[in-house]
Amino acid sequence: MTEFSKQVLYVGEMASGAQLSIPVYRLKSNIAGPKVYIQANMHGAEVQGNAVIFQLLEILKNTKFKGEITLVPYANPVACNHKNGEYTLGRFDPITGINWNRMYHFNESIIAPFALQYLQASDAEVDIAFKQLLHTEITDKLEHNQYGLTTGQRIAYQLQRMAQQADIVLDLHTGPISSKHLYCPEYAQQSASYFNIEHTILIPNEFDGAMDEANFCPWWKLQTEFKRLGRNFTFNKEAFTVELGSQEQINLELAKEDAKSILSYLAFKNVLSNKQYAPENITRYACYLKNYKAFYSPMGGMVDYLAEFGKPLPAGQPLARILRMDNYDLEMSNASDKAIHYLTLDHPVLPILHFASASVNQGTELYKVFTNFFIL
Amino acid sequence: MTEFSKQVLYVGEMASGAQLSIPVYRLKSNIAGPKVYIQANMHGAEVQGNAVIFQLLEILKNTKFKGEITLVPYANPVACNHKNGEYTLGRFDPITGINWNRMYHFNESIIAPFALQYLQASDAEVDIAFKQLLHTEITDKLEHNQYGLTTGQRIAYQLQRMAQQADIVLDLHTGPISSKHLYCPEYAQQSASYFNIEHTILIPNEFDGAMDEANFCPWWKLQTEFKRLGRNFTFNKEAFTVELGSQEQINLELAKEDAKSILSYLAFKNVLSNKQYAPENITRYACYLKNYKAFYSPMGGMVDYLAEFGKPLPAGQPLARILRMDNYDLEMSNASDKAIHYLTLDHPVLPILHFASASVNQGTELYKVFTNFFIL
Amino acid sequence: MTEFSKQVLYVGEMASGAQLSIPVYRLKSNIAGPKVYIQANMHGAEVQGNAVIFQLLEILKNTKFKGEITLVPYANPVACNHKNGEYTLGRFDPITGINWNRMYHFNESIIAPFALQYLQASDAEVDIAFKQLLHTEITDKLEHNQYGLTTGQRIAYQLQRMAQQADIVLDLHTGPISSKHLYCPEYAQQSASYFNIEHTILIPNEFDGAMDEANFCPWWKLQTEFKRLGRNFTFNKEAFTVELGSQEQINLELAKEDAKSILSYLAFKNVLSNKQYAPENITRYACYLKNYKAFYSPMGGMVDYLAEFGKPLPAGQPLARILRMDNYDLEMSNASDKAIHYLTLDHPVLPILHFASASVNQGTELYKVFTNFFIL
Amino acid sequence: MTEFSKQVLYVGEMASGAQLSIPVYRLKSNIAGPKVYIQANMHGAEVQGNAVIFQLLEILKNTKFKGEITLVPYANPVACNHKNGEYTLGRFDPITGINWNRMYHFNESIIAPFALQYLQASDAEVDIAFKQLLHTEITDKLEHNQYGLTTGQRIAYQLQRMAQQADIVLDLHTGPISSKHLYCPEYAQQSASYFNIEHTILIPNEFDGAMDEANFCPWWKLQTEFKRLGRNFTFNKEAFTVELGSQEQINLELAKEDAKSILSYLAFKNVLSNKQYAPENITRYACYLKNYKAFYSPMGGMVDYLAEFGKPLPAGQPLARILRMDNYDLEMSNASDKAIHYLTLDHPVLPILHFASASVNQGTELYKVFTNFFIL
Repeated sequence: MTEFSKQVLYVGEMASGAQLSIPVYRLKSNIAGPKVYIQANMHGAEVQGNAVIFQLLEILKNTKFKGEITLVPYANPVACNHKNGEYTLGRFDPITGINWNRMYHFNESIIAPFALQYLQASDAEVDIAFKQLLHTEITDKLEHNQYGLTTGQRIAYQLQRMAQQADIVLDLHTGPISSKHLYCPEYAQQSASYFNIEHTILIPNEFDGAMDEANFCPWWKLQTEFKRLGRNFTFNKEAFTVELGSQEQINLELAKEDAKSILSYLAFKNVLSNKQYAPENITRYACYLKNYKAFYSPMGGMVDYLAEFGKPLPAGQPLARILRMDNYDLEMSNASDKAIHYLTLDHPVLPILHFASASVNQGTELYKVFTNFFIL
Repeated sequence: MTEFSKQVLYVGEMASGAQLSIPVYRLKSNIAGPKVYIQANMHGAEVQGNAVIFQLLEILKNTKFKGEITLVPYANPVACNHKNGEYTLGRFDPITGINWNRMYHFNESIIAPFALQYLQASDAEVDIAFKQLLHTEITDKLEHNQYGLTTGQRIAYQLQRMAQQADIVLDLHTGPISSKHLYCPEYAQQSASYFNIEHTILIPNEFDGAMDEANFCPWWKLQTEFKRLGRNFTFNKEAFTVELGSQEQINLELAKEDAKSILSYLAFKNVLSNKQYAPENITRYACYLKNYKAFYSPMGGMVDYLAEFGKPLPAGQPLARILRMDNYDLEMSNASDKAIHYLTLDHPVLPILHFASASVNQGTELYKVFTNFFIL
Repeated sequence: MTEFSKQVLYVGEMASGAQLSIPVYRLKSNIAGPKVYIQANMHGAEVQGNAVIFQLLEILKNTKFKGEITLVPYANPVACNHKNGEYTLGRFDPITGINWNRMYHFNESIIAPFALQYLQASDAEVDIAFKQLLHTEITDKLEHNQYGLTTGQRIAYQLQRMAQQADIVLDLHTGPISSKHLYCPEYAQQSASYFNIEHTILIPNEFDGAMDEANFCPWWKLQTEFKRLGRNFTFNKEAFTVELGSQEQINLELAKEDAKSILSYLAFKNVLSNKQYAPENITRYACYLKNYKAFYSPMGGMVDYLAEFGKPLPAGQPLARILRMDNYDLEMSNASDKAIHYLTLDHPVLPILHFASASVNQGTELYKVFTNFFIL
Repeated sequence: MTEFSKQVLYVGEMASGAQLSIPVYRLKSNIAGPKVYIQANMHGAEVQGNAVIFQLLEILKNTKFKGEITLVPYANPVACNHKNGEYTLGRFDPITGINWNRMYHFNESIIAPFALQYLQASDAEVDIAFKQLLHTEITDKLEHNQYGLTTGQRIAYQLQRMAQQADIVLDLHTGPISSKHLYCPEYAQQSASYFNIEHTILIPNEFDGAMDEANFCPWWKLQTEFKRLGRNFTFNKEAFTVELGSQEQINLELAKEDAKSILSYLAFKNVLSNKQYAPENITRYACYLKNYKAFYSPMGGMVDYLAEFGKPLPAGQPLARILRMDNYDLEMSNASDKAIHYLTLDHPVLPILHFASASVNQGTELYKVFTNFFIL
């Protein structure tokens, strides 16, 4: 038996007074189990996660599971509604430039005193007390500040307050034009093989403001501090950023596949027991975050993106070629030499995503690639 | 023997004083023949035409032809450089909102007096005198006005002054996400079959500010006026807007195909004599401009575009479905009913293009479709 | 005794499903009198009219008047909420470029048949029947169209349906950085002297899509047609665009002054009988629309706006000077000659408004000025 | 005798191939003295510094001074030319959201080894060697990186390479709508009194990516490290961010005043000996950076900014009032209560700047204020 509920969070007001809200869907099993939190569309143009949540709801309402699953589409209605021209401008607050996914909160100074205080407590006591501490921290931020909160903080903190009560957190994103890839904390590397995602970026224990980090860093830091104090503490929290492919696209059929990929991971984590949600047999590549590199355009121009995603590109093979029609030289025997520039690297890479437009300025990020990648 | 030349037009200055310029490539045969003018990228995001001009240059420098061919990539460097976020915002002047392709000039009041004055002149005399009149008109606009010109007029008038001396004008555009299609004046319908383009929109003799109209309307109006005066005047000018597919993309291989399509048309017009540039054997659909319709979204939401381009869509079949996750209702037996909306029309259409983003406001133009279409 | 009511119009939905609405305030006297319709903020950055409506409500709720007054702040919540960076981008639909104040409807072809049909009807009958016809026209547009409406049409038509039932329509706008000025139909020139506004632009009987025109053009055209048919028809409708000053500003104190200016006009039209709302004794300048001219920047650069508003500027006196630091030439005896450019005209003008930013491209509209102006 | 020179830096290319460049003006005295570096317009809308550089050049070309003065207007032509709608969108890279003034480089790990190596060297030797090290660091960044540089790094590093050879660095900025204020490193507090600027923010020794910090932090950190190693090292470098007032404005007359303010400081630093450039006798307030606070709007709405700049605002006095016409309630005896909200703080503040637009979302930064301020 599953219990359904829907809640609405009020997270923003516009100049005309219009309120922006986030719908929160909750499915609660009568069997105890992990708490799962899944959100989508924190960045405005990254909409496909909403379709994945739709498909998850369609499947889950007829599926037995344990624990509680919270599903949050349209996690950032400010960004989601921020159209400019035909496209959606939603990676950052358009007034401040701050990335919407860099506004979550973690005050590392809470770790040491807590670890000391709870050094002798049971793991279960630690779990309850630490969750309570995180809850109090974020509630203070939300409710006690006469200078107020930025637009993004008001949204992020409300989401974080829900997410940090969960054991499993998935933040559904997309790249610009992109393959599927997964941001996975190094300690949870094993879990990466249960998603049907070919590329995994292993991230270290550093908080840089993102949703996934805001959920696993406190626990990982706490574990590290306990270790320093001589206690061997294990925790059972995982948080991932799931990059579903390209932005500015809704495809309900593909969303069903991505829903199954998530259910495969949830089955591994004992949320489901269906055998049908098993990982696919695919090659999974990984690299460490420090080896996930951006390639910037050495010139302005128009880009013919050549390198395919998910296929190792040998050293010296072109990532892209840039057209510069202003330099076409009819006098030269090979007139195209000055008009077409091939862009290469001196080592093999695995292309993961590229820029969304063919027109680039000098210095625009053209590609992101794995270097020193390996098979997971 | 071909004579090559390159010229640079100065068409804009930015706040820092940086000058924006347009490269103009000219190929001149020693054999007399038609004058051809081809430009690309008047709208900022519509870049593929630059690649087509590249491929035309690569082919033409080794190909025998008659007359003179002028090729103008980056026709609007202001729009081409107007990035906002990742994308290019280039359909209209971002300060005024005026479509960059609606700023060309045609003063219809010059027709009647000219027709009267040249009623007895030979066709060749008319041709020379009318071209001269158009040239004077536009030069006056460019050079004699203490109130100045708008940013777009300064660009458009300089291009128009070149184009209106040609017999054949091609303005290379693209749609947002789009099939190939051709805007063709009704009188030149026969020519549409020489392009490898499946869809043709037949446009009437009304000037609405666009490059193609600015080139054929004066002659068509002159013909009409001569007819009214009892003279049977024929002219040999054609101008087309060639829509190459989708915006924000450069693909040099596809550009070669589009270059061949243009050369097929030019072969028909006797600019080339190569037998290799012949039209492909494809089904060509057409409709009249008044039957080329836009479908606007009846609600805000996220769109899964379903209808394929270039394939007649029966009445009642969905163009698209809109996802509204805020309306998902877990209580309903069929929870998706309120979350997914199918959009249909009560008559068959031929979908030509759709909006570039999955996120739409109520009232966003979702699709453009042919109605009452026929095979050319 | 006044009857108050508040209504909410639903005029738009965003991608997240958020609804945008317009509040409509109505005050109805128990004494018969003219119907007045006042709206504000059709262009997003032009917010001061909302403050004027606030002050009108504050005054009117304690003031005796005749008839019915409808007050509509936030007339275009889509534009009002369209921030980009720090500023509001609200002169046109950011997807299509179409000016939000050019989407109202008037189908001139209804005039001739109506005039013929009602040639013998009384003025009162004409008034009722013509209002009904206008209402049916716009309702058809709103409700019977499977291709849908653009974002702007959905807003404009709903507003227009209310406004066209009124006898007096005021559309509150602002300029970029601007003096106060009034767009007044030529036939209503007398009324312009009852506003406390120094500058009036007299506009002809041509429909160009704006709210004021949409309200007076049908009646003016009808009058013209009746005249052609030999009937002398008078109507008592007036519609104005009131430009309150500069955009991006709210000032409640200044708003009170503007409210009094409007009440002075309404007193003249017999809506109020208070003697206290009388026009101020100021010099009022006017010019015809064709003589209201835009001056475009002859170069890119940074502008020091020099000409003051509302004061005739003699021929040869500078409107502005443009700084071009890239051209500063230390070698020249007068180094500043190439770095500072003075912009002048060869005839006197009355500067009304200027561009909102100091940074301009070549061709940006710098100033709008009255030429051939006269005292009203 | 002064030697003049002008250099052009190439710092960016746009999609059309257009190059963006920065003019660099140098005035070199035949008398030895400090090196001064002054740049303006790193943020696109903050243009007034260019006018100040114009006035400095006009004065300096006829003024005796010591050393060398480098003047760099249009320091960021990418931002300077980035118009969107009427305004300039220039605080951050529009593609990445990264603040243009947060891209300078300082690798703190170079300090400790350098201090150890040069522990016994003379101050003069340290000066030369450390400048050389900084130069090598930045040159490496600019020239040896196959992955390339971002658009902003290419600009910032070229400017920084020039600036870090100077003894005095002034980075001319403006606020949105703002009083004049100065960012001053804590150690240089004395110098703040030589500018004619009423408000000073004292900033600590932390590198946060800005131009001023990039110039003083390395030396301050070096001093700290030397101190830790037992050496008492003094350095004579100062760097300030000078906030000239409001953005989007050019005023050549006010620029002359600001030029004099800078010359007053330069006279204090022995660059000039003219007695005429002395500081004005004004009250100068200061606060520490941690006490310089932003106040965020608690609601969406339209703002009537009330608090004046540069005048202490008592606790409880309103900073601003927000108009919410959607909440006007005609039924209430005091109808305005729900439509007008006054914003206050419970302690005195000194308002320094406010947001540039009257339309705000919930969470928009409305004001920046000094708290715990004192007279300098």
